[in-house]
Amino acid sequence: MKSRGFVTGLGLAAAMLTSTAALAQDLPSWNDTASRQAIVDFVTAATTEGDEGYVAPEDRIAVFDNDGTLWSEYPTYFQALFIFDRVREMAPDHPEWADEQPFKGVLDGDMAAVAATGEEGLMKLVAVTHAGSTDEEFTAAVTEWFTTARHPDSGRPFTEMTFEPMIEVLEYLRDNGFQTWIVSGGGIDFMRPMTEDVYGIPPQQVVGSQIGKEYQVIDGKPQLVRTPELFFLDDKVGKPVGISRHIGKRPVMAFGNSDGDYEMLEYTTSGDGPSLGVIVHHTDAVREYAYDRDSQAGKLDRALDDAPKNGWVIIDMAADWARVNADPQ
Amino acid sequence: MKSRGFVTGLGLAAAMLTSTAALAQDLPSWNDTASRQAIVDFVTAATTEGDEGYVAPEDRIAVFDNDGTLWSEYPTYFQALFIFDRVREMAPDHPEWADEQPFKGVLDGDMAAVAATGEEGLMKLVAVTHAGSTDEEFTAAVTEWFTTARHPDSGRPFTEMTFEPMIEVLEYLRDNGFQTWIVSGGGIDFMRPMTEDVYGIPPQQVVGSQIGKEYQVIDGKPQLVRTPELFFLDDKVGKPVGISRHIGKRPVMAFGNSDGDYEMLEYTTSGDGPSLGVIVHHTDAVREYAYDRDSQAGKLDRALDDAPKNGWVIIDMAADWARVNADPQ
Repeated sequence: MKSRGFVTGLGLAAAMLTSTAALAQDLPSWNDTASRQAIVDFVTAATTEGDEGYVAPEDRIAVFDNDGTLWSEYPTYFQALFIFDRVREMAPDHPEWADEQPFKGVLDGDMAAVAATGEEGLMKLVAVTHAGSTDEEFTAAVTEWFTTARHPDSGRPFTEMTFEPMIEVLEYLRDNGFQTWIVSGGGIDFMRPMTEDVYGIPPQQVVGSQIGKEYQVIDGKPQLVRTPELFFLDDKVGKPVGISRHIGKRPVMAFGNSDGDYEMLEYTTSGDGPSLGVIVHHTDAVREYAYDRDSQAGKLDRALDDAPKNGWVIIDMAADWARVNADPQ
Repeated sequence: MKSRGFVTGLGLAAAMLTSTAALAQDLPSWNDTASRQAIVDFVTAATTEGDEGYVAPEDRIAVFDNDGTLWSEYPTYFQALFIFDRVREMAPDHPEWADEQPFKGVLDGDMAAVAATGEEGLMKLVAVTHAGSTDEEFTAAVTEWFTTARHPDSGRPFTEMTFEPMIEVLEYLRDNGFQTWIVSGGGIDFMRPMTEDVYGIPPQQVVGSQIGKEYQVIDGKPQLVRTPELFFLDDKVGKPVGISRHIGKRPVMAFGNSDGDYEMLEYTTSGDGPSLGVIVHHTDAVREYAYDRDSQAGKLDRALDDAPKNGWVIIDMAADWARVNADPQ
């Protein structure tokens, strides 16, 4: 068709204009360090036909962990804070929670008691806060929380706790023809309501952990009802599996920050063609947080040890980033 | 960034040029019937700002069943023919199959014996033919089969058993800013090796049934190994669930051909905004096949009854399509 040919022509022109990777104004929140250069060098080669680092457009797939990679995960995972808020909100309808862990711990602010209930306790919290509603009701609850809740340390909305340098990487990659995907241990439906606005990543490019879903026609309207059992855990060895299920091919770039990202990094950087693995190392106690091997959230130990031998780039947050968060909006 | 603004400008220009839906040369393999007009009218309204049928670009999601909707499913599902070929290919290494159903039935060409083993027999066949290999090995086997195998009636490669009018719909929708997705009861990894070439649909926009996958490092190389248990059945009530898991929002257009698509059609056409459900009715015993209520493959009964009250468009293949398949290549 004539119109298609014309559109293809425009697309090619646009691609040519943007294939000069690393314009001077790209990645402005980065210092001019080796980490920044490694990313720019990879992208420049990936978009240069004839270069040994060239990657065909359809294979330009970059995957990003979310917690600790695209936004903060301290004082604990934001989804846990959502769960605690939701338990407090639902508590008036559940007087029995006053005596039942882990709910009592949440209501008393006794996180040690909550932690003591382990994985079983966590699944109880997920069940009451994430299941029993329709997809659309849950999306509305998450959206409301992102609007009203504030980070306990900064007082900012959680959607402003994102890392500006990483958002610039997402944009820079998309400008160079990469698809950007989130592959997170967090709940897929907890992330999706905000990823398009905050990261420019549409819901269908978000991979995450999932609970059950059931199709039901309720009052004449077809709905998806959320059920409490864990359907898929998108963490550690689950991340490459999630990638295979949703994307269907091995990525060429992976960004993570913890041992939970080890297998995703390993899988990505062991393809037959060019690839790049990148780890965000939280070294900045002044502007963000400093933690690695002994951290409860985002433990980074084995991946830190193996990064040199695996050729993974380590971002030293304190040294590599000119700023961490965007200015308050 | 300057380059981004420029690219956006080009994108807008391209969108304006193509938003005059239904150029004279669109859908050339269609006769000028009410079915064709219903599709064109929906797309024209969806892309006309201010029209009550307008759909925002990010919500232009169209889902398509595969078997019987985008390509034939007779004399039986093509994936079943792949399974039978693969059993025959593997048989020399499995002398025990000579006495064991459903393998014996496949080797003897006794389909009644295979059918008699029911769902349990089917899962045995899936296990030996689809599991025990890596993702990449399985993709290679499927790709090889698509290259060498021939349809038993037409003698053509299975990738040429696609419906040209439907491929034109896919292209027409993409030209008008729609995302086109496959949502099929078939195996996701059986379809993905061919969907980009044949339908212009990349692997990440294919939703289908799935078996287990395990991450393993084999001889130093990270791989996904396929395991025999059923992980997700993307059929009937499973289709809206698959849509929610992969796409994360309710589509506005759905195309199917059987009762297996009922819930997908129902879910799609019960959103708050404009939507269109379309059923391909196999009425053409001369150029393709004619079947509906009593068919083993692609049974169309309840959806045919309810189409009028649900406002679903029925494509009468014999009357609506000027041709069915593309000319041999």
